[in-house]
Amino acid sequence: MFIAMKPHATEAEFEAVVEKVKSLGLSPHPISGAERRVVAVVGNTGAIDPDIFAMLPGVAEALRVSQPFKLVSREVKDEDTVIRVGDVEVGGKGIVVMAGPCSVESEEQILSTAAAVKKAGASFLRGGAYKPRTSPYEFQGLREEGLKLLALAREKTGLKVITEVMSTETVPLVARYADVLQVGARNMQNYSLLERLGEVRTPVMLKRGLSATIREWLMAAEYIVSKGNPNVMLCERGIRTFETMTRNTLDINAIPVVKALSHLPVIVDPSHGIGLRKHVAAVARAAIAAGADGIIIEVHPNPEKALSDGHQSLNFTEFEELMRQARVIGQAIGRPLL
Amino acid sequence: MFIAMKPHATEAEFEAVVEKVKSLGLSPHPISGAERRVVAVVGNTGAIDPDIFAMLPGVAEALRVSQPFKLVSREVKDEDTVIRVGDVEVGGKGIVVMAGPCSVESEEQILSTAAAVKKAGASFLRGGAYKPRTSPYEFQGLREEGLKLLALAREKTGLKVITEVMSTETVPLVARYADVLQVGARNMQNYSLLERLGEVRTPVMLKRGLSATIREWLMAAEYIVSKGNPNVMLCERGIRTFETMTRNTLDINAIPVVKALSHLPVIVDPSHGIGLRKHVAAVARAAIAAGADGIIIEVHPNPEKALSDGHQSLNFTEFEELMRQARVIGQAIGRPLL
Amino acid sequence: MFIAMKPHATEAEFEAVVEKVKSLGLSPHPISGAERRVVAVVGNTGAIDPDIFAMLPGVAEALRVSQPFKLVSREVKDEDTVIRVGDVEVGGKGIVVMAGPCSVESEEQILSTAAAVKKAGASFLRGGAYKPRTSPYEFQGLREEGLKLLALAREKTGLKVITEVMSTETVPLVARYADVLQVGARNMQNYSLLERLGEVRTPVMLKRGLSATIREWLMAAEYIVSKGNPNVMLCERGIRTFETMTRNTLDINAIPVVKALSHLPVIVDPSHGIGLRKHVAAVARAAIAAGADGIIIEVHPNPEKALSDGHQSLNFTEFEELMRQARVIGQAIGRPLL
Amino acid sequence: MFIAMKPHATEAEFEAVVEKVKSLGLSPHPISGAERRVVAVVGNTGAIDPDIFAMLPGVAEALRVSQPFKLVSREVKDEDTVIRVGDVEVGGKGIVVMAGPCSVESEEQILSTAAAVKKAGASFLRGGAYKPRTSPYEFQGLREEGLKLLALAREKTGLKVITEVMSTETVPLVARYADVLQVGARNMQNYSLLERLGEVRTPVMLKRGLSATIREWLMAAEYIVSKGNPNVMLCERGIRTFETMTRNTLDINAIPVVKALSHLPVIVDPSHGIGLRKHVAAVARAAIAAGADGIIIEVHPNPEKALSDGHQSLNFTEFEELMRQARVIGQAIGRPLL
Repeated sequence: MFIAMKPHATEAEFEAVVEKVKSLGLSPHPISGAERRVVAVVGNTGAIDPDIFAMLPGVAEALRVSQPFKLVSREVKDEDTVIRVGDVEVGGKGIVVMAGPCSVESEEQILSTAAAVKKAGASFLRGGAYKPRTSPYEFQGLREEGLKLLALAREKTGLKVITEVMSTETVPLVARYADVLQVGARNMQNYSLLERLGEVRTPVMLKRGLSATIREWLMAAEYIVSKGNPNVMLCERGIRTFETMTRNTLDINAIPVVKALSHLPVIVDPSHGIGLRKHVAAVARAAIAAGADGIIIEVHPNPEKALSDGHQSLNFTEFEELMRQARVIGQAIGRPLL
Repeated sequence: MFIAMKPHATEAEFEAVVEKVKSLGLSPHPISGAERRVVAVVGNTGAIDPDIFAMLPGVAEALRVSQPFKLVSREVKDEDTVIRVGDVEVGGKGIVVMAGPCSVESEEQILSTAAAVKKAGASFLRGGAYKPRTSPYEFQGLREEGLKLLALAREKTGLKVITEVMSTETVPLVARYADVLQVGARNMQNYSLLERLGEVRTPVMLKRGLSATIREWLMAAEYIVSKGNPNVMLCERGIRTFETMTRNTLDINAIPVVKALSHLPVIVDPSHGIGLRKHVAAVARAAIAAGADGIIIEVHPNPEKALSDGHQSLNFTEFEELMRQARVIGQAIGRPLL
Repeated sequence: MFIAMKPHATEAEFEAVVEKVKSLGLSPHPISGAERRVVAVVGNTGAIDPDIFAMLPGVAEALRVSQPFKLVSREVKDEDTVIRVGDVEVGGKGIVVMAGPCSVESEEQILSTAAAVKKAGASFLRGGAYKPRTSPYEFQGLREEGLKLLALAREKTGLKVITEVMSTETVPLVARYADVLQVGARNMQNYSLLERLGEVRTPVMLKRGLSATIREWLMAAEYIVSKGNPNVMLCERGIRTFETMTRNTLDINAIPVVKALSHLPVIVDPSHGIGLRKHVAAVARAAIAAGADGIIIEVHPNPEKALSDGHQSLNFTEFEELMRQARVIGQAIGRPLL
Repeated sequence: MFIAMKPHATEAEFEAVVEKVKSLGLSPHPISGAERRVVAVVGNTGAIDPDIFAMLPGVAEALRVSQPFKLVSREVKDEDTVIRVGDVEVGGKGIVVMAGPCSVESEEQILSTAAAVKKAGASFLRGGAYKPRTSPYEFQGLREEGLKLLALAREKTGLKVITEVMSTETVPLVARYADVLQVGARNMQNYSLLERLGEVRTPVMLKRGLSATIREWLMAAEYIVSKGNPNVMLCERGIRTFETMTRNTLDINAIPVVKALSHLPVIVDPSHGIGLRKHVAAVARAAIAAGADGIIIEVHPNPEKALSDGHQSLNFTEFEELMRQARVIGQAIGRPLL
């Protein structure tokens, strides 16, 4: 960390900074420049908030040099994390496809979707049993009944199941049915939930918050990993910007940036990332080309009648076509679809 | 709601839209224009997602006219909600001041702060016992011990206590000690928590999420009120933008806009809203001038030594000066500080 | 357009709206709903600002249904615009590659770069002679001397030249040397410049503004086309968001969305879109996979010594590797690199 | 500036950084830490882009400590700049009020507005003769005819005139009629225009760009001042965020932050800052309370019939009431309205 003094800081102010650094068990290295003085701080500053120094009298700015995340970073573990979910590897050479409806609505809906996405080549079935909705008056999901239907679909197709968990209380219940637990964007910084998920061994897919920086997202993953669960995959699902023609702005940059900073697998959600059914395939192709380890796609037997997110869900034919395109891009970059 | 067809939509597509409207128990009103046809939808469309229509073939756009929130809106209840916390009225003529440290750190710290802010004219003591932190390695709060210290400070000063609740499990515990339960920005859309808070009678202060629209914020309040707890105050604490010189961008516009849309009281948090100690007073003055019903300010006996948020906390002298300025602005607009 | 009255609007307010619509030569269609009344407006409302109605007493909201752009939209012209620059087609089946340094710095620099990017397969040479810089103290470009060097490089390699024009006065001068005139992001809404460019026949590449919506970007193109120059290509170069790890956030969604709304070609600038040299290739692959008609890449013989943008420029070897990857993705989607 | 090496950077990489610093005429100060090495750079680094170092092999990050603006900063000139426009002082103790229509539409409109705002206490008349409009099909202003009408209104009332200049060619013409030249938000980084305005002596009001950071805004002012015109006032008019209920998000934080960094006067534009007529007064009160040196307000004899921006313009009665409220807040903080 570097602490830059103001041009006219007094000697006493400078000394106070040096003392503060020492009091935290760190080593101060004073440097005198032409216009101002600076203190370089050596030691383990990862847990120290630069603001502790920024607020001292005479200080112009305090800047952190190293990243605050540890366990999820490539500095600590260089090789890619590969998460094994039964016989499926997430984060390996192959590209994982997760597909299914926004919400589990009925036995027929989930079984027909499962059969269709399995046939088209997906290895995971997605489907919400607990649904976070902006309005309390909207459909909130079938809850445990939905979980049972997902398990039934798994039994019939061999697909792995990924579904969202919304609260600490339901973690054990959802973990009983799901192969991967999803944390939704709105809960990315629900630290009670993250800590609870650190105590189970079920893999977790952590969606990026609507306006979370990459740093905050990796820190949220650090919560889970630091509590003991190393099986975390990250999911880019678009961020909030001023653009209103699309539901979110898929941050394509985040794929190579996160892959370079962290060893965790990165999944991309084009359905939420653009929110427009006819453009989901284009964004899916881009995600694979940019280096994503997998994609998660909303598919519904009849999107026009879906209880939620129909406008961004593909029907079976559209999904088959998306899979064809995804396979072509995957092959081009040497990564087969699983 | 209005559903605009594309210029070349077919008769069959138009009919399908009309049928879809009817199937939802609503009345379609077709209108033929020069370039395109439109269906006006009459009935209670509050719970209907416009996307249900937007995705139908031949549809260009579906637009909602009315707001989706009900119970928190002035259309349902025109007069201001006044929340009585003991002898203090939040949302009445007077302006409420809440003050105290970011985190409760020790008995001495909280008692001295309580005495100082009481003397300067605050009516609420704030202080975190459970702290949401971006990093798992940072100080997480004194938890129940912190709650006990807040209760002790209340006993000694008569101040009301406001403190954050982070999870559903701790709602009963925190409610035992607190006069007002705070929901932090990161939990604004933690719907499990909101529903649980709808089941208690303790007043709730709901902070706006970092990138929440005003509509989403009011919908989050609707969750609490619709579950049975009408005692909700809203807290504007700054939103996330591209500007990096300040911690957040306090949305001053939100104050008159929310006051016009909703009958709930609006509190403003200048400390988080700008995040720079020397400018907190300027933002507090602006908030009162714009019509806020109260302000919440971080105060610490020794901000340089605070375990969190010291860079935006005022010391006692600075807080006294802020109170003096706030009082002057309050008087100018005919609203005394409580 | 739809004008929704407030629930308790008076008859007189309603009549005033109807009269206002008529006074503008448009036809009002009143509709009575359960809670409120609405006026649907039929006629050519493209040039009418909805706010004209939104502000009338008793009006809740006025909503535009159709898009305000005309000449650049697919509603007016369905087939793709193909811009011929000599023997190169921009917007046709093939993918165009433009490459070169941020700034023209010297004869040796521009000639060696031109030779290298030509050899690697580019068809356009980029290079700034007039440089918009955030600081008045930074290198502002070689100006006319730079234009001459670009022309020399064209002569030696056969590459087409694209370069930025920053002011109305220099349009004739720059047009004398350049094959395509670039409008930079900061000038996207410099309407004097856009109008001037509408009067020449040289093709224009219009970069998206740092925080321009897709609608505003297309309206800026409409300025040029409506003044008489139909040869406009659009360039997505990243937008400004809260994320600070990357220079901008490349809006990958914009590619399919703009291609669906407009017939104009879309070029993508991965160098500015992410701003990190080692990730430029990943973003370029994504852009092509998403349907871009071309890419523009910063290349420098020695990025470490570049006078501007060195951190996002590729050296010759890196650019060759990017071209190899771009070619593979292009082939996968059936679009050869030109 | 500080250049932090990566943990495993080689000795050769470190030496290359040190050499690069020396080659720029600056002094390197190497520091060895526990995990990494750092080079502190001493000398005049204001014109050096940190990216020059960030891109060198082995470098983790390069961070600038001092601000890049000089002439507009308080480090160079501590006392407030007071701009004298005839007998009116902008940036002095009193608060300046500028008011008038968005566009000059007719003699009657501008003369009646001038008389009304003069009577209510304004000292400046605003009004657009050249209008930047998002669409080429919207009203573009009366141009020179509008300038003449503004001059006529000045003659009749004694008000000073502020109006926008949109292009370098029209600077001499507009300067002949105006007392203050306004640069609009969309032209904040039109450097050709800024440089041209640096060559005149007429005061300039520089509006903040829609997504400009405070740093970029001050750098744009630096362009004008560095070319020789010290009479620059800054105008905060709201920034672009994800919130859609308001036209922009007025950045109230920017007022104290800019006043602390720069000696230039700060004017606030509540009309564009919120864009909702009924809330303009609340935002104006807040701006004054936060320390603005002036406000600029859109006023129209009949906002319902305005050719532009009617939805955010006040009628004469509303403006009088705003002035009453502004006066009260000004008095409260010891700053009379001029």
